[in-house]
Amino acid sequence: MLLSGGLDSTTCLAVAVREGFAVHALSFRYGQRHAHEVDAARRIAARWGVARHVVVDIDLRVFGGSALTADIAVPKDRPAASLATDGVPITYVPARNTIFLSYALALAEVSDARDVFIGVNAYDYSGYPDCRPEYVRAFERMANLATRAGVEAAARGETALRIRTPLLDLTKADIVRLGLSLGVDYADTTSCYDPTPDGAACGHCDACQLRLKGFAEAGATDPIRYA
Amino acid sequence: MLLSGGLDSTTCLAVAVREGFAVHALSFRYGQRHAHEVDAARRIAARWGVARHVVVDIDLRVFGGSALTADIAVPKDRPAASLATDGVPITYVPARNTIFLSYALALAEVSDARDVFIGVNAYDYSGYPDCRPEYVRAFERMANLATRAGVEAAARGETALRIRTPLLDLTKADIVRLGLSLGVDYADTTSCYDPTPDGAACGHCDACQLRLKGFAEAGATDPIRYA
Repeated sequence: MLLSGGLDSTTCLAVAVREGFAVHALSFRYGQRHAHEVDAARRIAARWGVARHVVVDIDLRVFGGSALTADIAVPKDRPAASLATDGVPITYVPARNTIFLSYALALAEVSDARDVFIGVNAYDYSGYPDCRPEYVRAFERMANLATRAGVEAAARGETALRIRTPLLDLTKADIVRLGLSLGVDYADTTSCYDPTPDGAACGHCDACQLRLKGFAEAGATDPIRYA
Repeated sequence: MLLSGGLDSTTCLAVAVREGFAVHALSFRYGQRHAHEVDAARRIAARWGVARHVVVDIDLRVFGGSALTADIAVPKDRPAASLATDGVPITYVPARNTIFLSYALALAEVSDARDVFIGVNAYDYSGYPDCRPEYVRAFERMANLATRAGVEAAARGETALRIRTPLLDLTKADIVRLGLSLGVDYADTTSCYDPTPDGAACGHCDACQLRLKGFAEAGATDPIRYA
């Protein structure tokens, strides 16, 4: 399971734990701006008793060109309602989910896992191409051709690996409601692209806006600190 | 272009340069056993005048379970003729080409590249699932759904990205002949999975066996040093 420490992946973790999975969680450290995410992921992994938590360092040299990895300002106060239709934003990191899922595929293969969980959602999302259902299905198909387990399962007429996206068709409000019903403490989570040095969320980036809209529509209060 | 410093990727580089491409080469440092590969890749990139050479550090934590990344003996003296039909060998690194191609996809996206070259070949190969044509096609399809360039090209009815595999249907002997005809100096290259500390090839691992068979069948002499 890809675990960023955000609202979506933490809810996804709660879903998998409640389904009875022994979760092998995978987080990435890919730049100082997001070091607080890894701290959140560690807290959440401990709280939910994952079987294993692997934190992988990602080399940034091939990235760049994104507000999340380069010295580019994070956009603020874009209307949350139109994020999904405004095109691919500057916070998009080139091929990020593909790289993350590829590492997850490696971890799945060495762990004999059959299910790879990722908390993408295609409804209240930021317009990233690698969050769409057609992308996820294409990755799954490729993954089953890429691996020893895939080849061996195909020889038995089976499919080795499923990319599981339990949040895919949910709104942010649905996700908040689902998480609360599963006992998620959203105080553990962090979503902000541009937090203050002491870890308060900015409240104005795309991620904060989507998060706040989700809590408001779910009739719930977001327990994290905002600047 | 993925450039390992081996016989295949170096020949692939020569093909791309002769086709007129300005090559952005990408190599990976993923363990001490293969540090000599990165040195070879640097020499080759300089010799062929690539536009840019990026060396990315790959974190090993999710791997393991392969003779190339863990403390497992590299198999020796397996008959080269049956490697492709003997099943997936212990030198297979879980999801390796998927991770490598994912980084290449990121580099392609930030470089506005339309062609990603990889020197896989499905004939004289080692039985790795992620060297097969069906895998490459599935990766290409996924890649075009994953990226901003893919989404924008699809809106114009175009395909943004091609995974180019000019060696796919060639035997090792064909590859050696092709490379020699393009001016490749195979003394620059390294293929061995288990070289001596001073860089001589072992002559007995799968990679050495396939390489030696290729040179023999091409009626050429391999210029590298063997232990």
